[in-house]
This record gives sequence, structure tokens and C-alpha cells, in this order.
Amino acid sequence: MKNPKKLIEVATGREVADLVFKNANVVNVFTGEILPADVAVSDGWIAGVGQYSGKQEIDCTDKYLCPGFIDAHLHIESTMVLPAELVRMVLPSGTTTMIVDPHEIVNVCGAQGMQFMLNASENLPCNLYFMLPSSVPATPFETAGADFTAADMAPFVGHPRVLGLGEVMCFTDVVGGGDVILEKLAQLSPRPVDGHAPGLTGKSLQAYAAAGVKTEHEGTTFAEALEKARAGLAILVREGSAAHNLAAIVGGLVDNDLPTNRFMFCTDDKHLDDIARDGHIRWNVKLAIELGMKPVNAIRMASWNAAVEYGLADVGAIAPGYKADIVLLSSLKQVEIDAVYKDGIEARQALQNIPAFDAEKAQPRVMQSVKAPKVTAEMLALPVNGKTDVIDMVPYQLVTNHLREEVPTQNGLFVPNETYTKLCVVERHGKNGNLVVAPLKGYGIVGGALATSVAHDSHNIIAAGDNDADIAKAINQLSKIGGGYVLVKNGAIAGQVPLPVAGLMSTAPATEVERATHKIIKKASAMGIPYYVDPFISLSFLALPVIPSIRLTDKGLFNVDTFELI
Amino acid sequence: MKNPKKLIEVATGREVADLVFKNANVVNVFTGEILPADVAVSDGWIAGVGQYSGKQEIDCTDKYLCPGFIDAHLHIESTMVLPAELVRMVLPSGTTTMIVDPHEIVNVCGAQGMQFMLNASENLPCNLYFMLPSSVPATPFETAGADFTAADMAPFVGHPRVLGLGEVMCFTDVVGGGDVILEKLAQLSPRPVDGHAPGLTGKSLQAYAAAGVKTEHEGTTFAEALEKARAGLAILVREGSAAHNLAAIVGGLVDNDLPTNRFMFCTDDKHLDDIARDGHIRWNVKLAIELGMKPVNAIRMASWNAAVEYGLADVGAIAPGYKADIVLLSSLKQVEIDAVYKDGIEARQALQNIPAFDAEKAQPRVMQSVKAPKVTAEMLALPVNGKTDVIDMVPYQLVTNHLREEVPTQNGLFVPNETYTKLCVVERHGKNGNLVVAPLKGYGIVGGALATSVAHDSHNIIAAGDNDADIAKAINQLSKIGGGYVLVKNGAIAGQVPLPVAGLMSTAPATEVERATHKIIKKASAMGIPYYVDPFISLSFLALPVIPSIRLTDKGLFNVDTFELI
Repeated sequence: MKNPKKLIEVATGREVADLVFKNANVVNVFTGEILPADVAVSDGWIAGVGQYSGKQEIDCTDKYLCPGFIDAHLHIESTMVLPAELVRMVLPSGTTTMIVDPHEIVNVCGAQGMQFMLNASENLPCNLYFMLPSSVPATPFETAGADFTAADMAPFVGHPRVLGLGEVMCFTDVVGGGDVILEKLAQLSPRPVDGHAPGLTGKSLQAYAAAGVKTEHEGTTFAEALEKARAGLAILVREGSAAHNLAAIVGGLVDNDLPTNRFMFCTDDKHLDDIARDGHIRWNVKLAIELGMKPVNAIRMASWNAAVEYGLADVGAIAPGYKADIVLLSSLKQVEIDAVYKDGIEARQALQNIPAFDAEKAQPRVMQSVKAPKVTAEMLALPVNGKTDVIDMVPYQLVTNHLREEVPTQNGLFVPNETYTKLCVVERHGKNGNLVVAPLKGYGIVGGALATSVAHDSHNIIAAGDNDADIAKAINQLSKIGGGYVLVKNGAIAGQVPLPVAGLMSTAPATEVERATHKIIKKASAMGIPYYVDPFISLSFLALPVIPSIRLTDKGLFNVDTFELI
Repeated sequence: MKNPKKLIEVATGREVADLVFKNANVVNVFTGEILPADVAVSDGWIAGVGQYSGKQEIDCTDKYLCPGFIDAHLHIESTMVLPAELVRMVLPSGTTTMIVDPHEIVNVCGAQGMQFMLNASENLPCNLYFMLPSSVPATPFETAGADFTAADMAPFVGHPRVLGLGEVMCFTDVVGGGDVILEKLAQLSPRPVDGHAPGLTGKSLQAYAAAGVKTEHEGTTFAEALEKARAGLAILVREGSAAHNLAAIVGGLVDNDLPTNRFMFCTDDKHLDDIARDGHIRWNVKLAIELGMKPVNAIRMASWNAAVEYGLADVGAIAPGYKADIVLLSSLKQVEIDAVYKDGIEARQALQNIPAFDAEKAQPRVMQSVKAPKVTAEMLALPVNGKTDVIDMVPYQLVTNHLREEVPTQNGLFVPNETYTKLCVVERHGKNGNLVVAPLKGYGIVGGALATSVAHDSHNIIAAGDNDADIAKAINQLSKIGGGYVLVKNGAIAGQVPLPVAGLMSTAPATEVERATHKIIKKASAMGIPYYVDPFISLSFLALPVIPSIRLTDKGLFNVDTFELI
């Protein structure tokens, strides 16, 4: 808790600071300058910038102090670890604030998922703020675990760490004036509202902005980002594991010398291995500087700009009255991190105080979320007659082609081989036990199957294999471990990563999860899957009925182009 | 009320707009560009920017559209007219939003003054937001009409048009860690808090910022403004009737090519005649452009920057979902105003709908605020013996010199002449009837007296004259008319401007008040007062115990340098 009286005493010099960063080059986000100064910290808050002495002093000669970085939009579930474990990964690279959209867990567990994430992010050495998922269920074309209506949101609206409405993915509903989403927008207005409207342009974009959407992170070209910025949307420049939008957008900003104050950074979805290698928002800053952006502007995008947009009063600047969330850089241009301080405590020390996860305290609905029927090989039979619908994966892209082809059969039933894989989706929220099957091309698995409970947006079980016995075994094993990743090879469990939290997140340490994931992917890849296809993540997107052209949900094959079940 | 569903219909083109500004050059505050477009308006809100048709269309070829201007800080009482009348004056020059600090009326009437201002500013064609006066009473060295404590503020904190805490003038209390002001800061935190700390620098400034103060408008040099900006305070660049800070601060911004997004405009105190001649915030924009600032940046300072700082969600930009508060310029560089639209309604038409002031509905405490004792000439006797304390006015400045001089006497009593005026302050809040007298040099009135109930900050009656009979007559007449300006010449009332609202504001139309004020000043000036001294406003500041070196409050002579009563 901030104690202004104490800060005043320290700022005036009447009391000695706990900690002083001496002789630093301080990035001033307000004036865009870098100024030599000491920074005095008291009880985790910045008391003053000037000339100060402290009980502890850190010599920062030739180093740079900048505000802790803010990730303006991410889904923690995509990292497959709990908030505490993600904090362990991102804090050392300078991220001290994250604005989280728990869209995945809420799709599985509804309000209990929201509450779980709030609980699981308390008292961490990182400021975790939340947006309320706006689009749950995402579509009526699959069975989600829960609804999250305006009424469900109501109890969370007043929570001090809830900022606004999460990414409004149902942009066609907004542009169409749909009542369900407008009710949610009205409930949160005039708080921050995140957008998600890839390619939206012209009058539809104007309508989307008029509805009250305030940010966008789906711009992939500079022209798209610029049109959205002109319409009043703050632009979250995304650089994650799958989406790499930074070069286009920052490049455009630099080339056109446009003001940057309505631009900020996010990762959206960034996996543990990428975070471990490059760091988190630090990577966005570094890339922006490499593209020719002034370092101070890149740092403002990573701090102050996001704080302003999301109404965060006490982060994003190194100035009196702000949290002592500080990144110490040994190189400004390379964004080389010397140390990170959260609330004035050095990261390694701050991370030691994180309590272990207590499954006993978690909501049962969150910890026992996989309620799929027991699957037998016989249930996976797919009768075909002549040409049939085939999902064709496109290398390096999330889009798929919709093929009509003849597939191998025996006794009128589809028989997978090294070209045609059997793809299967099983409803796993205990609602109807839907089970559907379709042929998949471009995946190539031979001699086994894998299954995962991570499958956007409804996170039913999705499995793929070249024989029914192994597919059934993988699905049943997944149910047994409460969700996660399972790999079956020649009738035996060859690997698994349990994700018992909503079937989406592990309770293990991040380093363990990273290692286990790496191992199972390596094993799966050796079974014929092309090197450019991530065996599990590619499956996770094959059920997502918003990316063209054809998907498989628990309700059947879905034609995204005509937006209807086949 | 905004109707997003309707806006969506109009934005998409499914419904026709009420009003479209066709072929305009639109100032885009987000990207800093000027872009050709139509702007579609529906029910007073902007639905879309692009290509639109409307029931009514206004051709804007070769003209510029920019967001309505925001005055980020002003005291309406200084204009001596009611909010509605000020709106009549400022709207035609483009001001569509004002952030008002009703410090003066609250010093006289406390919470009832606050409530009065909220009532009197309802349903006007201008967005009037309020800051809760933080420093009432301003000092213990004079008798104010009311306290306005944290408890008094509480009922107003949730009001939709109350934004935060008004200018924290008691900066020495803040830096000293005083509990009374810290309680008020805590109550409003983390909302906007305006500062007022002329000359505050170094560690004291850091302490002031650490306490939670967020803006400052008292910077008179660029160096002062820059230090404050670096400390995190948003800078309100003031250009009013008395204070002219724009050239210094904007000049510095231009010369140093600093980012402008933490800078905005205010008038603080600007009188009707100056508004009538130059316009309101429009004048700040024009001066800034003349100083070499990019027009788009000057307009951003006058709109978006202030909206962001004060958390105003729906003003400050021409974009979908924002209020149709629009200024149409025929010249961008000259800021020549072609027309102004408030909520999509042209200013002249919008101003016709203002209801007349209804004194019956006003709080009695506001309408009968002058409760001074009846004053006789005998009560004004000032015994002196040898050298005595004299207030010496300094030409063109608000500061005074503290002299010790012999003054003319008769029978041991001070006798004013053309050099030594008799200055008198009478407590008028009905609390103690204090009456004090002192010699004043540099005012020069001959053959009469004037009195006013406008006397910062406690607004007791202050009077000055060269004979006791006329002084007493002026004071008593002031009581009779419930406050205002009174001029007595050779024993007869020579002029008066009644200000019955708290003794500070007239109920008459702005043009009448301006005319009457001009007339009485002209008459008073003809009575020996130097041309460079405003007869009434100069008196208004002679009781203000925060400007060096010597003042007269109802408790006696006050030495500002030692901060004690003499």
C-alpha cells in the first residue's frame, strides 16, 4: 500500500530512502528525455528523482533505468502454466505488469475460471490486471464449457484488478448491432474495451469503434494498423510465438514519422520456449529499436502508453508516486537487462516469495474439467462414399483448405494412412458427449496418435492419429489425467503433459513444463509430422471456427467461409 | 445519451446520418494527421468518419474540422457571470468542455456553493466538469465563509461530473506532510488532482508529486514547466487575463522539440472583455501556432491531451463514438472559426435553448451571502503614532512592498490623501464582523471610495477611499445589493455592479455584465487611480495572504514573507 506521508518524508530528504539507484541515466517517459539522476525508493514506491542517499545504494553509472514493461494483452493459458509460473519466466526480462484476458479458461469454466485466475494472481511480484472475456461462448457452432454473460460478469466489474472488457472477437455481431455483445459493452462502458477484428475496414471498422471498442492487436499490416489508429483504436503491436506484427507496424511508424503515443506492445500468445530465449516485452522493445525507433519511444510504448490507455495510475513511469517497478539496462539500444526490480525488490529475491500452488483451494470445476465419454475404437468409425470433405493444412499458416477428395476406405469406412490422418473432436465439458471424425491432410502422423484438451476456443478434446485404437487410447488417457497433451505410439503411452487446471494449465514449475513439452513435441515430430508443423499447437487451432476455410468442432465439420456446419 | 446501436446503424450506412460534414479536412488527434473525409453525426454523436450522406449536409471544402476545445482549468467566478452566461461567451469561439474549480464560491458558501455550481451547469451546451476545491479555507489568517473538509467533499465524489481534487494551493502543507490535505488527497486518489505550486522545485517538487498531485498550471518559465513535467505533472499552459505563460512554455517546447502529449491549455482566470476580443481556448491555440508549433499539436493540446489527462472518455477527438463537439475552421493557422457545433447542434441554435436563471431555486446561502455589519465613518478611524506599516502596490504586478513610513495624521488618526489611500477589510460572512484598516500607497483615489465583495480567497469586503464617509457608504451599499462592485463619488453612489450570487457572480447576461463593469471601471479610473491599475481587481488581490509581501485580511495586516499577522 502506498503511504504518501512516508513518500513525502523521503522525497524531501527528511527521511532516508530504503534504496537509491545512484547516478543512473533515467528514461523520462513524460518528456522523452534521458536524464542523469538518482532514484529514491521507499517501501516499494518511488519517492523522488534527483540527488538522494539511501540505506542501500546501487551504482548505476553508465546504466539506464526505465519503467517496468507492460504486456497490454496476453492469454496466460497459452503458456500452459499458472500465473505465478509465468511471472517467474517474464519478470527477469523486465515485464512487471500484464493485462490478461483469461478467455480460454472462462470458455471452459465460466465465472469460476475467472475467479480462479484472480485468485491465482494475487500477491505476485508482477501487476496482473484482467479484462473480462467478452466472447464466451465464441460461436454457437461448438459446445463450450460455459457461458459468460453480462450477468455473469457483473460480480467482477468492481474488482480492483479488473479493467474492462476483453477482446471483442465477435466483431460481426458488433457491426450487426447484436444485443448480446452490446449489453456487455454497455455494462463495461466507458472502461477499456479490447478489440479483435482482423482485416476489419471502412464503414464496418467505424461501426466497431462507434460501439465503444478502444484497442486492437490484430493488425498485421501497417495500413491496417494505421486505419484502425485513425479510427481511434489504440494499437497493441503484437509480437508473439505465432503472430509477428511488429516489423510491419513499427516499420511503418518509423518510415512515416508518426506519433507513437497511441501505440503499445503485447505478446497475445507467447510460449515458454520463446520467452526463455528472447525475453518477453523486452523483445518487442529491442526489435522496435532495431527498426530505427528512438529507444525512448520504444520504451514509452512498453510502459507509459499502455498505462495511460488502461488507466493504470501508478505504473509506467520512473517518477515520484509510482511503483518502483524498474528495469536496469546495461545497454539501451540492445535492451540488455542488468537487473529488474518489482516494488523495489530485485527480481530473484521477489520470486522467492511466491507461495506454492494449492490445488485444495482451487474451484473443483477448474480442477476437474475434463468430462469426456469413454471412447472405443468402434466409435471412431467414419463411413464414406465417394468424394468427401477433407481438411487440408497449409504449411506455415493457420488457414486451411477445404478439399473434396476420395480418401482410402475399407468396408465403406475411412482408413487413415501417412497422407490422410484421422482427426477427431470429443466434447469434454460433460454436456453431450459429441464425437466427430474427419480426414485431415498435411499432418502425416504414422504409428500412433496424439490428443490435447487445448483446442481454441471451446477446448474440447482434439485428437489425430493413423489408427483408431491409438486415437481412443490417447483420448481416454487424456480424460484420466484431467487434460493436457498425450502421445500414444504403437499402443503405448509414449508421453504426456498433464494440464489439470481446466485442461489448459499445468501446476508444475515453468521450467518443467517447458522441458516436458519440448520432449513430447520432439517424440511426436519423429512420427512423420512435418518439421514445420507443431504437433499439438497445430491441432489446437483445427477446431477454431473463425479461421478460414474449414474446421472440425464437436458439432461437425464447419465451413468458415460460409459460416455454417457442413 | 449515447445509443451505440443507433451509431452502428449509421456508421455502417444502414441508416442515414442526421448531419454530415462533407469534404472536410479532419484533424486526427490520434495520428497527428489532417485527412480528407466526411464526418457523420447521429443524435449528437459522431458515428463515422469516411464517406457518408446525411439528411443535412454541410459543405466543408477547404475547411478544417477539429475537436471542440477543452479548458483544462478555470474559475468561472472570475468572469463574474453564471456558468450559462460564460457558455454563451466561450462556445462561439470553440470551447465545448470546461474543467471548473469553483474555489471562490466554495470559500464563501461551502458545500452549498459546490452544489449550486453543479445545479447551475446542468444541461448546458458545453460539458462542464468539476474539481472539488482542495484548499478551503485557504489560510487560517482570514475569516472564510466556510470549511470544505474531506467529509464535506464525500457526497460529491460520486457525481458524474466531478473529476477529482481542485488545485492544491497549500503546497507547503503537502510538502510538510499535513494531515488535512493528505486526507483529501487520499479520498480522491487515484483520480485527477490539480496542482498549484508556483516556483516549487527540487526535492519539494518531488514530494508534491509523490503526494499524488497530477497537474500544474502555475509554471511561468519554461524551465519551471519542464522540471514539473519531468516530475510527472501534466502541464496546463495558462493564458488568461492576468497570467500569460504561453509564450514561455510553448516557445520552449518548440525550441527543444519536446513531445507535447503531456501539455494542454487552460485560462484559469480570463475576463469577459478578453474572451469577447480574442476568444477563449482558441486564443491559446492561435498563439501556440504563431510560436511555431505544428497546428495539429496545438489542437491536440486543446483537446485530446486534456481529455486523456482528466479521463474524459467521449470528448477530444473527431472519431466514431465521440460527442459531436466540433469546431469548423476556415483557416487552420489563424484558427479562424467558421462555426462551432455542440452535440451536433450549431452554437447559435444550441445557445437559444439555455433556460433563464431561477433565483428561487438557488440555495439561500448562495443568494444571501453578504452579512457584514453596518459600518459608520467612526469605525474606520486608524490611530497611528510615528512610522506605521504601509502596503505599497507595485505597478503591473500582484506583489506588494511592505513599507514602514510616516503617514498624514490629524489628532493621532490616519488621514488619507492622494498618496495614501485608506484600505479597509470587513468580514462579511456573518461570523465576527471584523473590520480592519491600513494605509495603502500607489492606488491614488481622490474624492470617493470603492468597495467589492470579490477579494481572494475568502471574499470579505474590501474597500478603499480617501475619506471615511464615502468608504462607509460604499461598504453599506455593497451589503444592501448583496455584493458586487460599488463606487461612491463625493457622497453619492456613482456606480454599481450587483453580484448577488455569493457576492461573486451576477445573474445578468454576460454582455450586460461586461458593459456595466467596463463603465464602472472607467468612472473609477477617472478618480485618480493610475491607468495601469484595475480599480477593482487590484483590490481583490490585496487581501490574498499568499502573494508577497504584505496584505490586509479581516484579521489584520499580514506579512506574507514571515507568514504571520503583524
